[in-house]
Amino acid sequence: MIIMGIDPGIAILGYGILDFEGNKYKIIDYGALTTESDVSMPDRLTYLYNGLSLLLNKYKPDAYAIEELFFNKNIKTALTVGHARGVAILAASSLGIPIFEYTPLQVKQAIVGYGRADKKQIQQMVKMLLRLNETPKPDDVADALAVAICHGNSSRFSNLFKL
Amino acid sequence: MIIMGIDPGIAILGYGILDFEGNKYKIIDYGALTTESDVSMPDRLTYLYNGLSLLLNKYKPDAYAIEELFFNKNIKTALTVGHARGVAILAASSLGIPIFEYTPLQVKQAIVGYGRADKKQIQQMVKMLLRLNETPKPDDVADALAVAICHGNSSRFSNLFKL
Repeated sequence: MIIMGIDPGIAILGYGILDFEGNKYKIIDYGALTTESDVSMPDRLTYLYNGLSLLLNKYKPDAYAIEELFFNKNIKTALTVGHARGVAILAASSLGIPIFEYTPLQVKQAIVGYGRADKKQIQQMVKMLLRLNETPKPDDVADALAVAICHGNSSRFSNLFKL
Repeated sequence: MIIMGIDPGIAILGYGILDFEGNKYKIIDYGALTTESDVSMPDRLTYLYNGLSLLLNKYKPDAYAIEELFFNKNIKTALTVGHARGVAILAASSLGIPIFEYTPLQVKQAIVGYGRADKKQIQQMVKMLLRLNETPKPDDVADALAVAICHGNSSRFSNLFKL
């Protein structure tokens, strides 16, 4: 099963594409789509959408896992990131690829086993599970790989227990 | 000049399409795309995107005017509406249609002449300027027509003063 994980953002959108077979993860591709703040919002959104569409057409994932976002205070940030997340969802949805949303808590629990894990622990586990020599940078890429692993683990449990 | 105005939202997305020639507005089409809350976010976004793409391809507007949004408190709402607004921007952007963003204050000033106008005054002016027998409903449709008129008025002044 090919899983594409997404950490949505307008300046940096992390993605990670994994092959998950027989309880093992094999990394296929990962990286970030980035846009500059002096570019107009329509152009930034179009760039992100086209970039994701290219990746989706290239790797044809069976599942698209995307983080749910929570913000404590900054409404302007929430609105802006919402634009990027909407476009990221549309890219997969318009190709008919099943979309799965996971909260940060679910990602942490799926990867480290408990919800209070910090960013560094997540990155260590991602590195280990994917047998990488270095932690993928920027953080958004590690987060995208984490949500892809979260989906793999979740679907494994779903299969085990026939949920 | 054909202007399409948009009041973005996930449950109700208002649109209004006007022909603006020689300082006069002629209404071409208006309405709302609506989605139910029990439908998944990917399906709601896809529906809005496809609906807008159909309208854009049908009327081929020269300009696409969309309201900027401001929220005072609800971060979750801001994030959700951000999804819809991102997709609404992408629909026009991917067809190369010029996009113009106006704040609620700019819309009010353009239509009623001052920024503290209330919803009802805006609706009255929209009805009058477009020679409608009734105020368009729901409010989102009147707001979409208002932002389209705002763009027409702004571009008229830009031309007058060669801004």
